[in-house]
Amino acid sequence: MVTKYQPVKGMRDFWPAEMLKREYVLDIMKKTAQTWGFLPTDTPALESLELLSAKGGAGEAIKKEIYNFKDQGDRELGLRFDLTVPTARLISSKLDLPLPFKRYTTGKVWRYDNPQALRWREFQQFDVDIFGSNKPESDAEIIGLTCQIFDSLGFKDFVVSLNSRKLLEAFLKFVGITDLAEVFRSIDKLDKIGEDGVRKELVEKIKGKDKVEKVMDFIKAKGSASFEKALREIKSVEGREAADELKKISDLIKSFGYEKNLQLDMSLVRGLEYYTGIVFEVRIPDIPVSLGGGGRYDKMIESFGGRSTPAIGVGIGFERIVEVMSRKGMFKLEPPVKLYVLSVDENVKPEALKICQKLRAEGISSVFDVSGKDLKKQLAYASNSGIPFALFVGEKELKEKKFKLKDMEDGEEQLGSLENIIKKLKN
Amino acid sequence: MVTKYQPVKGMRDFWPAEMLKREYVLDIMKKTAQTWGFLPTDTPALESLELLSAKGGAGEAIKKEIYNFKDQGDRELGLRFDLTVPTARLISSKLDLPLPFKRYTTGKVWRYDNPQALRWREFQQFDVDIFGSNKPESDAEIIGLTCQIFDSLGFKDFVVSLNSRKLLEAFLKFVGITDLAEVFRSIDKLDKIGEDGVRKELVEKIKGKDKVEKVMDFIKAKGSASFEKALREIKSVEGREAADELKKISDLIKSFGYEKNLQLDMSLVRGLEYYTGIVFEVRIPDIPVSLGGGGRYDKMIESFGGRSTPAIGVGIGFERIVEVMSRKGMFKLEPPVKLYVLSVDENVKPEALKICQKLRAEGISSVFDVSGKDLKKQLAYASNSGIPFALFVGEKELKEKKFKLKDMEDGEEQLGSLENIIKKLKN
Repeated sequence: MVTKYQPVKGMRDFWPAEMLKREYVLDIMKKTAQTWGFLPTDTPALESLELLSAKGGAGEAIKKEIYNFKDQGDRELGLRFDLTVPTARLISSKLDLPLPFKRYTTGKVWRYDNPQALRWREFQQFDVDIFGSNKPESDAEIIGLTCQIFDSLGFKDFVVSLNSRKLLEAFLKFVGITDLAEVFRSIDKLDKIGEDGVRKELVEKIKGKDKVEKVMDFIKAKGSASFEKALREIKSVEGREAADELKKISDLIKSFGYEKNLQLDMSLVRGLEYYTGIVFEVRIPDIPVSLGGGGRYDKMIESFGGRSTPAIGVGIGFERIVEVMSRKGMFKLEPPVKLYVLSVDENVKPEALKICQKLRAEGISSVFDVSGKDLKKQLAYASNSGIPFALFVGEKELKEKKFKLKDMEDGEEQLGSLENIIKKLKN
Repeated sequence: MVTKYQPVKGMRDFWPAEMLKREYVLDIMKKTAQTWGFLPTDTPALESLELLSAKGGAGEAIKKEIYNFKDQGDRELGLRFDLTVPTARLISSKLDLPLPFKRYTTGKVWRYDNPQALRWREFQQFDVDIFGSNKPESDAEIIGLTCQIFDSLGFKDFVVSLNSRKLLEAFLKFVGITDLAEVFRSIDKLDKIGEDGVRKELVEKIKGKDKVEKVMDFIKAKGSASFEKALREIKSVEGREAADELKKISDLIKSFGYEKNLQLDMSLVRGLEYYTGIVFEVRIPDIPVSLGGGGRYDKMIESFGGRSTPAIGVGIGFERIVEVMSRKGMFKLEPPVKLYVLSVDENVKPEALKICQKLRAEGISSVFDVSGKDLKKQLAYASNSGIPFALFVGEKELKEKKFKLKDMEDGEEQLGSLENIIKKLKN
């Protein structure tokens, strides 16, 4: 039966079962970032449309998807479509920010997109960035943290594909190609249209079949052996520098202990136009979309009116991760409420409530009847809600100071003092 | 110097120093609610304008403040102005929800309000509600949790004013007053216009000076003695029932251990029209605004198309609490980053990074240089960032497996193995 009011198309309500998963994932992301010395920032959901449409931020495709309007004061506003553009505004506004500045942010973003599998019109993002360093250490730190987050969430076979836009550019220039943006656009489609599709597009864009084949060979290079081979192709200074840098970054990531998860991939471009250095993406087997990715964007802060500030960041695919972990049964969450304090009859209510309070003070999540249910219905509610333990509080129990604790799963009962029961429940 | 792009008027950016306070407060609120068996829900920021303007939700004044617009699909949408209306939609949509349902929610809301002290156009709310019980236990549970949250945040002298709309109605009817809504509106202004102001308004609204004085006497009743006295005035059945119920709720709150914070206050009305039973508000000395409040609203879910579902809830004033705690110096937060791992020279970078990683694995928030600073600049950065400890990693240290740990505050240094340093930092 459809009720009177529904959520807006493409947007979702979250009930506790789903929310507990989301909070679990978010907590791990936040805690890991903080342990690595990244601190939280936050910006408003609404921004001026001028900012959201600014050059150097979003691509044209996303601009069409901005929820925008005039407010009562005739300001042209829009809901943010990502966390990068608001962050660029934030950083550009603080001209005396001590650098490097390491921060994470999380929040909802909105896009008037066609709702489909794993795509919604409101969704949560989680971004981590370092501002003010162009050193390989900062690239490695962002990728290392990304690995640590996936590792901590329980993903063991994730792969981080890594490439350098500078290297790819150097290679294309070396081969004698000038319209880099067009070629990037075709390479970016490799996953969608396959090798033959890319080759077909390149033949139209590049004069000379040998050049096309050189590009095709180069972008097929994966893993360090084929990477080394591909590198031998480039003889320019820029190419050598870009290769050295990529090598240094990948060596540093090894120091973090994630070499097995790292794969160099010369075909990785990532659509966004603002990347200026390395780009990377996280994938897991069997899932056709990336679960996160990022790269270096050294020009954005300056283009938004700030100091010249190099930047490297990652967007972790929060929504996709929650979805994939659910599908794969990766959530092993404790029951959120541990104990139902049963009132055997109405008289003992205030005492049951006091006992409940004592257990809560010990950090044991406990509930009691707040809706006048009799004992049988209280037990049924506890059982249906998946609460693992029930404690019987009646006059006899209060007098003898011994209480019966029932394990709701196996039905086993045990009698004990409140202190002993607290001890048991804390383990 | 004003930079190119600013936040939207009335909205705020949050840098880490502020965010760490906000997260601290939010964590306590969430954890306390969860220990009491309340679980999280979430709804979208955007709702249909029809819902946001629905009768029984907001008052007329708020409706003018809704940010609203048509989306690309010609839907009339608005940004939520509170969390109650979206929650009412959520609950009304699930006709088979097991009751009682105890939940909390937190998120941003938006109002095109005149920006002023403690008022913003985007702000965070924190709501806790119980759906499906009209029993005093549920009222007491919500107020008890409210007290626990303020207590846990470090407020010791907060006062919860409590009244019953049913009782006030019964009294007014008993006195012979019919236009209850009008009289409620005047009583609600007591704080703003004072006793004389209210008396002046009532004289215009109520025929009979003796009736006005009876109302004035009644609403001045505060604390249990004057409460009992006021109650003797009401001789109707409804009055007696409402008084019994209020007595029972206040007794139950005593069982939670918060009787010293509770004050009955016959003048408390709270503006919102949807309240049907008890209403309450939290205040602290010296602060002229309430830091939270709520009440019973038994008709809203039904009016939104759901089952008839009694409800009691509280909105905790998240923004005001953060502000007041800041002003009063109530935040005693640990430094978020504990250790700077110093690379004595460039060569040892990979090893410094490995050591940093080891410390992070132990849960010690640690950073290392990612921007090519020399040792002196690394030390200056650590000091300026308020990082309390620095660890020196150089070739000598690595060879001897003894590292120097510097307390950045008192300058004291000590030499030890990594294991000993980890032990020290963990305490």
